[in-house]
Amino acid sequence: MPALQKQGPTSGFTLTEVPLPTVAKSDVLIRIEKTGVCGTDVHIYQWDEWASRRVHPPLVIGHEFMGIVEEVGEAVENFKPGDRVSGEGHIGCGHCYFCRTGQGHICRQVQIIGVDRSGCFARFMTMQHGNVWKLKPEIPSDVAAIFDPYGNAMHTVMAQAVAGKSVTIMGAGAIGLIACKIAEAAGALSVSAVEPNPRKRQLAIDYGASAVFDPTQAGWKDQFLAATPEHVGVDVVLEMSGSAPGIRSAFEIVRPGGEVALLGIPSGDVGLNLSEAIIFKAVTVRGINGRLMFETWYQCERFLLDHKLDLMPLITHRFPFHQYKEAFEVLERGEGVKVILDWTQA
Amino acid sequence: MPALQKQGPTSGFTLTEVPLPTVAKSDVLIRIEKTGVCGTDVHIYQWDEWASRRVHPPLVIGHEFMGIVEEVGEAVENFKPGDRVSGEGHIGCGHCYFCRTGQGHICRQVQIIGVDRSGCFARFMTMQHGNVWKLKPEIPSDVAAIFDPYGNAMHTVMAQAVAGKSVTIMGAGAIGLIACKIAEAAGALSVSAVEPNPRKRQLAIDYGASAVFDPTQAGWKDQFLAATPEHVGVDVVLEMSGSAPGIRSAFEIVRPGGEVALLGIPSGDVGLNLSEAIIFKAVTVRGINGRLMFETWYQCERFLLDHKLDLMPLITHRFPFHQYKEAFEVLERGEGVKVILDWTQA
Amino acid sequence: MPALQKQGPTSGFTLTEVPLPTVAKSDVLIRIEKTGVCGTDVHIYQWDEWASRRVHPPLVIGHEFMGIVEEVGEAVENFKPGDRVSGEGHIGCGHCYFCRTGQGHICRQVQIIGVDRSGCFARFMTMQHGNVWKLKPEIPSDVAAIFDPYGNAMHTVMAQAVAGKSVTIMGAGAIGLIACKIAEAAGALSVSAVEPNPRKRQLAIDYGASAVFDPTQAGWKDQFLAATPEHVGVDVVLEMSGSAPGIRSAFEIVRPGGEVALLGIPSGDVGLNLSEAIIFKAVTVRGINGRLMFETWYQCERFLLDHKLDLMPLITHRFPFHQYKEAFEVLERGEGVKVILDWTQA
Amino acid sequence: MPALQKQGPTSGFTLTEVPLPTVAKSDVLIRIEKTGVCGTDVHIYQWDEWASRRVHPPLVIGHEFMGIVEEVGEAVENFKPGDRVSGEGHIGCGHCYFCRTGQGHICRQVQIIGVDRSGCFARFMTMQHGNVWKLKPEIPSDVAAIFDPYGNAMHTVMAQAVAGKSVTIMGAGAIGLIACKIAEAAGALSVSAVEPNPRKRQLAIDYGASAVFDPTQAGWKDQFLAATPEHVGVDVVLEMSGSAPGIRSAFEIVRPGGEVALLGIPSGDVGLNLSEAIIFKAVTVRGINGRLMFETWYQCERFLLDHKLDLMPLITHRFPFHQYKEAFEVLERGEGVKVILDWTQA
Repeated sequence: MPALQKQGPTSGFTLTEVPLPTVAKSDVLIRIEKTGVCGTDVHIYQWDEWASRRVHPPLVIGHEFMGIVEEVGEAVENFKPGDRVSGEGHIGCGHCYFCRTGQGHICRQVQIIGVDRSGCFARFMTMQHGNVWKLKPEIPSDVAAIFDPYGNAMHTVMAQAVAGKSVTIMGAGAIGLIACKIAEAAGALSVSAVEPNPRKRQLAIDYGASAVFDPTQAGWKDQFLAATPEHVGVDVVLEMSGSAPGIRSAFEIVRPGGEVALLGIPSGDVGLNLSEAIIFKAVTVRGINGRLMFETWYQCERFLLDHKLDLMPLITHRFPFHQYKEAFEVLERGEGVKVILDWTQA
Repeated sequence: MPALQKQGPTSGFTLTEVPLPTVAKSDVLIRIEKTGVCGTDVHIYQWDEWASRRVHPPLVIGHEFMGIVEEVGEAVENFKPGDRVSGEGHIGCGHCYFCRTGQGHICRQVQIIGVDRSGCFARFMTMQHGNVWKLKPEIPSDVAAIFDPYGNAMHTVMAQAVAGKSVTIMGAGAIGLIACKIAEAAGALSVSAVEPNPRKRQLAIDYGASAVFDPTQAGWKDQFLAATPEHVGVDVVLEMSGSAPGIRSAFEIVRPGGEVALLGIPSGDVGLNLSEAIIFKAVTVRGINGRLMFETWYQCERFLLDHKLDLMPLITHRFPFHQYKEAFEVLERGEGVKVILDWTQA
Repeated sequence: MPALQKQGPTSGFTLTEVPLPTVAKSDVLIRIEKTGVCGTDVHIYQWDEWASRRVHPPLVIGHEFMGIVEEVGEAVENFKPGDRVSGEGHIGCGHCYFCRTGQGHICRQVQIIGVDRSGCFARFMTMQHGNVWKLKPEIPSDVAAIFDPYGNAMHTVMAQAVAGKSVTIMGAGAIGLIACKIAEAAGALSVSAVEPNPRKRQLAIDYGASAVFDPTQAGWKDQFLAATPEHVGVDVVLEMSGSAPGIRSAFEIVRPGGEVALLGIPSGDVGLNLSEAIIFKAVTVRGINGRLMFETWYQCERFLLDHKLDLMPLITHRFPFHQYKEAFEVLERGEGVKVILDWTQA
Repeated sequence: MPALQKQGPTSGFTLTEVPLPTVAKSDVLIRIEKTGVCGTDVHIYQWDEWASRRVHPPLVIGHEFMGIVEEVGEAVENFKPGDRVSGEGHIGCGHCYFCRTGQGHICRQVQIIGVDRSGCFARFMTMQHGNVWKLKPEIPSDVAAIFDPYGNAMHTVMAQAVAGKSVTIMGAGAIGLIACKIAEAAGALSVSAVEPNPRKRQLAIDYGASAVFDPTQAGWKDQFLAATPEHVGVDVVLEMSGSAPGIRSAFEIVRPGGEVALLGIPSGDVGLNLSEAIIFKAVTVRGINGRLMFETWYQCERFLLDHKLDLMPLITHRFPFHQYKEAFEVLERGEGVKVILDWTQA
């Protein structure tokens, strides 16, 4: 079958033929239709320092997908060929404390598809049935293909109550923009965004932010605080920039007693004045990754079924799979929000 | 009246005469009986960098106390002369969001007695009636004098559920030792302590820790983790050392999905690998200071009334007030846990 | 001064002259401008069984109000003549566990203005300063006059997370209709209403309900359940009818693991099959009354300041105070939602 | 194989031969060693009204057990013959919202072993591997056999925070007595019990209750309230009597703002004055059944491994399986707390 593979420790991917995966007893074989391209994929494409440490070529890449069940293992009862599905890409061991209490995303043996094991940028992929998610007919396939980052954003927003709270997104990339829309739908009083890139600031406004701030402008924090009730800061900050300045700023603009969710992944140590940032202000900080299994998936589904938000505007580009290079170039140039690679397009 | 005063920007205190404070309409005048000496007082005594930045002499020091109501302002209805009282030393503005929702300890105008305004190391002190706490007769005066650090420890322990959880205290100073006892009383499965000082490690064992670790020993973290279920780490870490290595270790020994409460106050920035420390592990971090007003005070009272813990063994030294120098020397030598300065002793 | 008084144990009120209240040291004297008429006032007007048991004439009635500070007691520092204010009508003792932990509404000595002590249907009213609420200039006076029922609705909605949840209101009276709007603003996936009165069902639709059900129609519950995901029921029910059939239905339409908030006050015992209603379904039930002091007040303010909802459409009638009889007749005929009695209108 | 079977709609059980169950792909075949006898089994034995409505003979009874894995289906990877196991007797569908979010105990298709499908009072039983629980070697087999009621008690106690709270158990049967011990271990300030049977009251004292009350004595509620702080009632009531008077009393003795967990199953409607019982007091009520899957199981394991409680004293009788009649007679006479039926005893 055709698949997009990292073949060695250099930049780029290769669209090549790989063997069709075998279907174990508890596996579902999925004919991939649409996939989303994530910043992580771009890192692996570029073969940066993180990728060279974590990824072991040759490896089929990709973790955002939807497709059609082609075949099921003999112990699989709840899926059948023809089912439209997406799936959770964090594969836990299934037997530990974390896996048995809905926290498989932090299982100590977790493997992520397209990073630690074979991924979804292929014509077919197998996945253990417990990780497969049956799609309701109302969910558009393009949106189904990006449940993974949509779920990251949902998990981050829902990690604390945002109803009746002011919320700020640090970093208006794809997940930040999705989070803007979710936070608004989840009852935030207001959603603002802090983002150095002017095009992304405009997107944040287009996607629902009531105010945007440019962190490269001197004095932006004073302006930010002045706009909050009693000038004490914002109730909730969702940190999605992963940059050291972004993280430090998050703690400066959050109010005493406020909450910070950290999703963006900084490289290396970040120096924090913990006394001022967290302790004296009695701030609560939550580390976020992946998605709750499967509370987050149900939330993602229901926000869509009840028309609380529309993710289609965030899908800015679609390419047939063989044009994968163009997809990565669009992302490298910072032009796209969500880019879809599609096996069903010629 | 006599009072222990910081008279200028140098080390030491002076036992001197100061004017009796005037009693405003909403104030309670308290004849101080017993006071506790805090590490903060030692910093002010020594006039370290923090003290020289924060404290403006001349100032009467001290924030841990109990005493007897001497007189009340004309608008005070719930106290009368003769009442035995302690009091919350964080004086909020009384009118802001924080003050009106039980979070006066993080009021933006909060003033701490003995640090920002006149304190309790004096024969008399005034306090607005809303901050005064009437003592039940069952509470021993020595214990009543240390409700402030007891409340710090209670607030830290109760900031997350510890029932059915394993708990580790980083730093076995007075508050850490009190927290050991509270955590055990609050249903922790086990309480361990990490402390470099061998005498304090012994105290931790005496006061209920089931295991102690010496962070100066190579390999202690591996031993620590090996002793936790499935070797994933401890459920809850209460950081009370305020040291950068202690804080970094806290995040290495907490389990995925675990919780860290930060009470110890580091000076300067602390470098943290946030990706490993908090994000990938989905850790929750809570900054703690002061005491909830007044949920924490009720908890402190009830643990004592119901005999869930006994703080008397933690009070290692008692001095009449004029021997204050000996009290500070005991603390500077690291000999005492809680030291009481007493106006009622000759 | 003129005041609307219950003069004896019979139906009706009398607009009469009463003495101006004296201003105690901690009191604020408020010149009342606008007041809201509550169903409770109608009960007292009609002198039903509840009223005759609870209310002791002669008494000035009324608990929903806004006005202008006329004078302050000598110990009051945070209000001054001319301030625009509303106020919390549950007057706690101020010193008990409940009062000191933000739960003054369930203080054992709580007195409600216009029910247990003199109320706001008068030209002037005194209130202890701790209960007075300063109004931001952006809050319209008509809306400020109904912070009491608005706060009931807010407290009920915010007693559990509704973001990402389906919500049903039992009983579309004034508070139920306000709750519809709040639930939607707080991120509910959908809000439906169950209400026998066709005019109120229409109002529910006008005020944001996505579906309404007539509980007098056979089979409505089956239709209701069929409209929920997997037909298991709704996530959250806000019971505001106070009727036995409404309460029983609430537990039949809530999903397993769902939540029911009880605000409506039934008279007499209600028979419940607790095994089916609560235990086997693992339902959580919360009793609600009053407003959190003062978390709820801040929430009410912020939803308005951030334009998350508009209560003006719910104010259907306004009368000058001397036309109070017409106000009560409108409510007795079930025509109005919120009716304002106004001292500033001639 | 031998099994204890309900053979028809009359009282009694029959120890008879039944076919060995077949082992499906995802099943584990367990050689049962020890089983616990539950009040539910007694109801089925006696063939009361509930049993005749719910149970369809012929059926092998029993749901409390431990045993040894004899054989595993071909898709089972995490168990092997010889493993010592217990198991969760609520068998969910595995695919619905509840099953995928740790709430399989309230799955709409849940089947309970020994009630809805074949149970554990047999030499062998099959169970889908996801419900099987591997036992640590430190857990005694007798205790492993009663993880089901132990888990009921744990789930009830841990459904709300009890650390620093006063707790009362209504009904000191086996689960109530286990809950006494758990509540104490989980940090309750005090645990009291309300129980009409004098022998059970004595057991409650033996197992850790600090006070017991006889609800058949006039005035007991006044005495109860007088013993609580400020006479307002207890913080948490765990209702395990399932009797209408017990449930009504629970709401009379709980404090304003307190919490009631309902585990005991009343038959028929219970009349409650909801206004006084729940609404005005702002009480939170939680319906409890089964065990969280599998958070509760981990809690049960850890309390034992960390020696927080000892359940052995609660196991008052042990019989070889062929003496099952004596076991039921002991329970019918109200003599036993937990009674073990053992296949390994001759």
